Amino acid sequence: MAEIDRMLEANEQWAQQFPGSKPVQPARKVAVVACMDSRMPLFGLLGLDVGDAHVIRNAGGVITEDTIRSLTISQHLLGTREIVLVHHTDCGLEKSDDVSFGDLVEKVTGRRPPWASRFFTEVDDDVRESIRLIQESPYLLSREVRGTVYDVGTGRLREVR
Amino acid sequence: MAEIDRMLEANEQWAQQFPGSKPVQPARKVAVVACMDSRMPLFGLLGLDVGDAHVIRNAGGVITEDTIRSLTISQHLLGTREIVLVHHTDCGLEKSDDVSFGDLVEKVTGRRPPWASRFFTEVDDDVRESIRLIQESPYLLSREVRGTVYDVGTGRLREVR
Repeated sequence: MAEIDRMLEANEQWAQQFPGSKPVQPARKVAVVACMDSRMPLFGLLGLDVGDAHVIRNAGGVITEDTIRSLTISQHLLGTREIVLVHHTDCGLEKSDDVSFGDLVEKVTGRRPPWASRFFTEVDDDVRESIRLIQESPYLLSREVRGTVYDVGTGRLREVR
Repeated sequence: MAEIDRMLEANEQWAQQFPGSKPVQPARKVAVVACMDSRMPLFGLLGLDVGDAHVIRNAGGVITEDTIRSLTISQHLLGTREIVLVHHTDCGLEKSDDVSFGDLVEKVTGRRPPWASRFFTEVDDDVRESIRLIQESPYLLSREVRGTVYDVGTGRLREVR
């Protein structure tokens, strides 16, 4: 069965126990920016309820133009004011670099990605870099941002100072 | 209390019941691309377990260069092969347009965003546009993609054909 068919089937159960609708504006006025990693069910591990927070995720949980686009909409249109970053241990983006990854993609597809893939070597530094990029953005209403690293081996979240 | 402090406190409970580590490669070899909307706890509503799927989210769940960067890493480096899109009813991106939103941001910050904000008027068409953009990307290994709309009023997921 295709994965989407399994998801559509699983959703039947969810819909039967659906607790009801919530407003489009996040209740806790916070946006989370996190890595796409499959081991981070953010609502569970951050204690979020349905309707609490925007959740923006990409490879690495890094700050790109698209992250800033999403945060700008989140703040100006939908009222969020705090930003929480969630990076994590054992990240796929620690496992390569732009040259090796470019070689890999080019070998298989014949095309080399024109963008920076945003690999990194030290997760705490990468969190601090994300904080810096948010604080430098001229488009946000609020730059109240703090960052964390999630340990995928223990389930524990640690703030980066 | 800052929202992050509430999250760090809630995470203590999560860590105490943590079931153990999983591999970095998603078990179901699937990447989900979804909107950042606060009313979509994707693990719950799609029936995903920890470790099952990459989760990429931005304002609208749209396909940008950053989405393609994330999907390229997901497929070439971490083994996913299917893509599932989750857009939804009552989306914030149906509530403005580039000109009005540009005016709003410029009025408050003095700066007009240089990017397209990706507002849309018809959610099914926006899902089909995302499918088209994925199928046109030269960097992916697999373009097996299907799209859905989640009804935030009923909890029900519907495939867009």
